[in-house]
Amino acid sequence: MDQKVLILFVDDEPLIFETVKDALEEGGFAVRPEHDARGAMTALEECAGELSGLVTDVNLGSDVTGWDVARRARELRPDLPVVYTSGYSSADWNVLGVPHSTLVPKPYAPAQIVTAVSALINKAASQPGPMPG
Amino acid sequence: MDQKVLILFVDDEPLIFETVKDALEEGGFAVRPEHDARGAMTALEECAGELSGLVTDVNLGSDVTGWDVARRARELRPDLPVVYTSGYSSADWNVLGVPHSTLVPKPYAPAQIVTAVSALINKAASQPGPMPG
Amino acid sequence: MDQKVLILFVDDEPLIFETVKDALEEGGFAVRPEHDARGAMTALEECAGELSGLVTDVNLGSDVTGWDVARRARELRPDLPVVYTSGYSSADWNVLGVPHSTLVPKPYAPAQIVTAVSALINKAASQPGPMPG
Amino acid sequence: MDQKVLILFVDDEPLIFETVKDALEEGGFAVRPEHDARGAMTALEECAGELSGLVTDVNLGSDVTGWDVARRARELRPDLPVVYTSGYSSADWNVLGVPHSTLVPKPYAPAQIVTAVSALINKAASQPGPMPG
Amino acid sequence: MDQKVLILFVDDEPLIFETVKDALEEGGFAVRPEHDARGAMTALEECAGELSGLVTDVNLGSDVTGWDVARRARELRPDLPVVYTSGYSSADWNVLGVPHSTLVPKPYAPAQIVTAVSALINKAASQPGPMPG
Amino acid sequence: MDQKVLILFVDDEPLIFETVKDALEEGGFAVRPEHDARGAMTALEECAGELSGLVTDVNLGSDVTGWDVARRARELRPDLPVVYTSGYSSADWNVLGVPHSTLVPKPYAPAQIVTAVSALINKAASQPGPMPG
Repeated sequence: MDQKVLILFVDDEPLIFETVKDALEEGGFAVRPEHDARGAMTALEECAGELSGLVTDVNLGSDVTGWDVARRARELRPDLPVVYTSGYSSADWNVLGVPHSTLVPKPYAPAQIVTAVSALINKAASQPGPMPG
Repeated sequence: MDQKVLILFVDDEPLIFETVKDALEEGGFAVRPEHDARGAMTALEECAGELSGLVTDVNLGSDVTGWDVARRARELRPDLPVVYTSGYSSADWNVLGVPHSTLVPKPYAPAQIVTAVSALINKAASQPGPMPG
Repeated sequence: MDQKVLILFVDDEPLIFETVKDALEEGGFAVRPEHDARGAMTALEECAGELSGLVTDVNLGSDVTGWDVARRARELRPDLPVVYTSGYSSADWNVLGVPHSTLVPKPYAPAQIVTAVSALINKAASQPGPMPG
Repeated sequence: MDQKVLILFVDDEPLIFETVKDALEEGGFAVRPEHDARGAMTALEECAGELSGLVTDVNLGSDVTGWDVARRARELRPDLPVVYTSGYSSADWNVLGVPHSTLVPKPYAPAQIVTAVSALINKAASQPGPMPG
Repeated sequence: MDQKVLILFVDDEPLIFETVKDALEEGGFAVRPEHDARGAMTALEECAGELSGLVTDVNLGSDVTGWDVARRARELRPDLPVVYTSGYSSADWNVLGVPHSTLVPKPYAPAQIVTAVSALINKAASQPGPMPG
Repeated sequence: MDQKVLILFVDDEPLIFETVKDALEEGGFAVRPEHDARGAMTALEECAGELSGLVTDVNLGSDVTGWDVARRARELRPDLPVVYTSGYSSADWNVLGVPHSTLVPKPYAPAQIVTAVSALINKAASQPGPMPG
């Protein structure tokens, strides 16, 4: 299993970033880190085909939000598991989120991210019809 | 129970329209019919607060699609059950659909619409926390 | 299939009662009607073992509520599908409801009751381990 | 919507057969009827590609059972919604059933079949990745 | 993320207690420990508003059980994720448990608790309508 | 909690094997390791009654596959949680898999296995009717 299970993780708060990255890596995931929307969008163009999941903060401190990043990701990979993190109401998720995504409310424990990503990947494979991707 | 359970139903094909409208009414729903995107958008401004659900074809024969109608509906009512009908791939749904919606593939039997609407309304009520709406 | 699929249906509003009873019977269910909590409790003692489901209004116009009826039903039949109907907040359901039940908000279309009952019975059979009941 | 939503329905008890066929057709489905395992297997070879679902009794009065029919159906169409009906324990379903199928216990109300088929078709379309089939 | 994700954890067996507390803390949760029903009830009055979840043994060695603790918790916080642990049959859970809770059978691996708590919190946020709490 | 939560883990690739075994044990599970189909089948005859779950690779380098191992496991224990791992399409899972199982696509992160096993055990206990096993 030298192939990696790569997660694109986008967050601009350094403390959260390291904690979650550590938790994902301890769970056996490889993490592609990005700290802003521009970086995330570039990463998607470069490696959407190699990703197993996207974890993105909604608020990225710019006009381009996590909602936009996820939508672009799904254009490139309709089956990609998407986890949003947000400190605000889930009302926005109901308008701007994509189907089969998970909203993890802030503050959160890193185990919630590991569980959300793992559950979404497993569910995407355990579905009727040919495996996506 | 003189109050109605109102479904906004948007489709531009007359034959489908009557069949589904009949099935919803036989199931006990009241139907607000609209035949194009403009009418659907107007209906949302008028009566979003009174709706129990939205059923919309994706392809409405105009630039404004069922994806847009549903997004506007969720802006006004984040908890509104949404059912899309489409003859095309679900790949678009993964990019443009809203969470907790159902995609009914075309062609469909009218019972699929009744089941999808009923299940979404029941699920939205049977959730943790205060009832939405 | 001369055996009946019996639903205990408890509601004290005559108009709703007939509409829902008709819808359940049209769907192929047999209905045991009760109009108050006392009757519902008696019915449970008499025929809990023969029931395939319980549909009960929460507000039965007495101290004994639909929450109490459902709890007694589950004591006698831990696997019994339970559907509550209520015009109030789902907050109470989160405190007083039983697991694997469905809350149908009032007003509702009768199809929602048929769908809720059908889905719960099917789900109870399609589970790991020996079939309950 | 002149295209049909075709369900292969396999049962050898005449009374059940007519009741369920009527309910499916009233819900808007077209029904391909078969009364034994041999007929069901032949039907699969002829029209698996046109099917939207399979409803089969488990006990077909022959060595070839509903479990076998469903497995052959999934070989030809990995995404096909499958509903089993059975008067026996669900223990067998846990060994011999296919994933994403529903077991409807006998006796059942025809509405349970309509709900089970509708829910499975809708769920198969509302999944991550390209629409199957 | 200096805010904590606080779990009220109630169990009277010292060995289990430390193992699970360690697992939750390693997953990034903060744990409020209580060892009996009285302490749990007091904790709820003090800090229900700050809790993200409740994990309680059913048998607390007193008349007041985990079922009672959870019910009180839901009165104060209708949306609170609840995990019960029990060495006995799930029949009781079907009568005395609250909706949207998880029963973890004893003996269990601590990862089951972390997964159950994480999944319930994520699910409560990823629902239609405004975020609870 | 001196009783163990025993997982039968079957895989013939040494590197994967150690990584997953470590992750399961760190999560608090006990692991019965087997490296081929023959060993897995023998293990089932010896200790099916003591198992809490089965994790098996589909491709075991022999005529007997993980599909066969899982089917034998379910014959002995209809309620047993089953996780398959596979590098191939999920089309086979739809034909050969058992209900209520999870397919984890290869390559995977060990956290996906821990989450899948934990979620299946918890779900099997949190169901209507008496607890299986």
